[in-house]
Amino acid sequence: LDGSLLMKRILACIAAAAVLSGPAFGKDKPSPGPKTPTEILAASPAEDWRPLDLSRTLIMTLPQNRQVVIELAPAFAPKATDNVLALVRQGYFDGLAILRVQDNYVTQWGDPNAGEPTARLIAPAARTLPPEWTRPLKGLPFTELKDGDVYAKKVGWVDGMPVASDGKQEAWLAHCYGMVGVGRDVADDSGPGSELYAVIGHSPRHLDRNIALIGRVVKGIEHLASLPRGTGPLGFYEKPEQMTPIVSVRIAGQLKGGGPAGVIEMLRTDSPTFARLVESRRNRDDGWTKVKAGKIEVCNGLLPIRPKL
Amino acid sequence: LDGSLLMKRILACIAAAAVLSGPAFGKDKPSPGPKTPTEILAASPAEDWRPLDLSRTLIMTLPQNRQVVIELAPAFAPKATDNVLALVRQGYFDGLAILRVQDNYVTQWGDPNAGEPTARLIAPAARTLPPEWTRPLKGLPFTELKDGDVYAKKVGWVDGMPVASDGKQEAWLAHCYGMVGVGRDVADDSGPGSELYAVIGHSPRHLDRNIALIGRVVKGIEHLASLPRGTGPLGFYEKPEQMTPIVSVRIAGQLKGGGPAGVIEMLRTDSPTFARLVESRRNRDDGWTKVKAGKIEVCNGLLPIRPKL
Repeated sequence: LDGSLLMKRILACIAAAAVLSGPAFGKDKPSPGPKTPTEILAASPAEDWRPLDLSRTLIMTLPQNRQVVIELAPAFAPKATDNVLALVRQGYFDGLAILRVQDNYVTQWGDPNAGEPTARLIAPAARTLPPEWTRPLKGLPFTELKDGDVYAKKVGWVDGMPVASDGKQEAWLAHCYGMVGVGRDVADDSGPGSELYAVIGHSPRHLDRNIALIGRVVKGIEHLASLPRGTGPLGFYEKPEQMTPIVSVRIAGQLKGGGPAGVIEMLRTDSPTFARLVESRRNRDDGWTKVKAGKIEVCNGLLPIRPKL
Repeated sequence: LDGSLLMKRILACIAAAAVLSGPAFGKDKPSPGPKTPTEILAASPAEDWRPLDLSRTLIMTLPQNRQVVIELAPAFAPKATDNVLALVRQGYFDGLAILRVQDNYVTQWGDPNAGEPTARLIAPAARTLPPEWTRPLKGLPFTELKDGDVYAKKVGWVDGMPVASDGKQEAWLAHCYGMVGVGRDVADDSGPGSELYAVIGHSPRHLDRNIALIGRVVKGIEHLASLPRGTGPLGFYEKPEQMTPIVSVRIAGQLKGGGPAGVIEMLRTDSPTFARLVESRRNRDDGWTKVKAGKIEVCNGLLPIRPKL
């Protein structure tokens, strides 16, 4: 938003926010400690970070070595995540394609020949799955965000994933930017995980509780979000040559050192650092922000990764 | 989300929603009238649509004739929209470039040489502008959305634009997907409209009341949202050759027949059809949706256009 060549100046201002924020905002005394996300993350202790769980992390590779790292959340959709892992183990997605990119909505991938005699075999993985659109709230280590939500009674995070809940019995993964789900047809059980989608627009929260979310793109969502939009209905590509091929999808644990997932770690959403980060986005103390929002939507929360130290 | 080749089946189901919705959801009697967006728009009277205001609509053309149609909203930032129109009249943006694409945030364009001796002249347009980040609520024909909002007391629409308000004195354009604003530096008055941005991710509502929004991409946002992401800090491109050049920016009224803006019309957000459309997205009666959201966020509202009849 800032002038392009004025950027350095702005970055300097942001870095100086701890100094600026006292007098600039008329406080009696500058509050101590880190204020901007950069400062907060720099000051974070090692125990506030965790490695990715390589046994449930997928690496999708597109041409030109564009890699998308997806951590699955079996606590929410255990059968779907198991089936997707089974499909990945049998090499199901290798050579398939991005089928659909609908602007401000989703990027979807799977078999261009699904439903045709030439379709790739899904078996021995399951071909139908019972709906796993919600799960019991009980037993979830829920880090609640008290800022409210238009769609659900409660929102927050569970182990790095945005989560919503009725506040009593049920919880579900929330359709925030970067979330990954299992496409389905009209029938509840029609999504076996052979066709997956990632959210690439304003969070379509009306999909919550209607479809199984199975995880989140931890790194590389831009490779899915910047693809050419499909020109057919619902953003499907109209011609096979418009589709971006999928080179491979692998489980990170099968790759040497976990591949690109093995060299990063993510901030724990139940950590003090994460709580500070949320507050830093709710009330920005960066010199640029004149009117602090005072609130933050769950889908506007930052979920940082960093190279493993 | 649906199986790619199962799409036709789904579309058929959606078309049959009026039939399905009675028995399928256990109602005593199917409610009459159009239910899906397609049906609602097909049944809309002509007076629920309006042409674009060509005197305040911009046509940005990128290479390969990718055109972006932006309607400005002078009721919210009159000085900024006037200055942007003045810049466009003097050909300011022609030959400049997309400078920044930050994933899940903004696409920003302007002068790659801003701040350098080789920068393009902004004068005779104004070089600074007073902040126009809010305006009086009074006098605005506000179509309120009663579903609540995390960031503001009130939200709704004014003449095709998403709007938020404190419910008492002030109103402001809301940073929804596709909104266009005026980049600024740290100083309040540092954004003359020579650098503009469009929202291409989950709505960054914390920017509300901190920067002047001047309008909305009515058509062609995908040309800004699907660009390669910049790899520098904040998504700025690091090399000039990575930047997409801007062929031209014109006022639609200067083009024959208004160019691409002259052949479309938009649904009036104060129309009965729009109210029906909002309800159709709040409680989807399409056969596919099993649990209706019951709510909708202002930034999830559809703002349809169609070819002029």
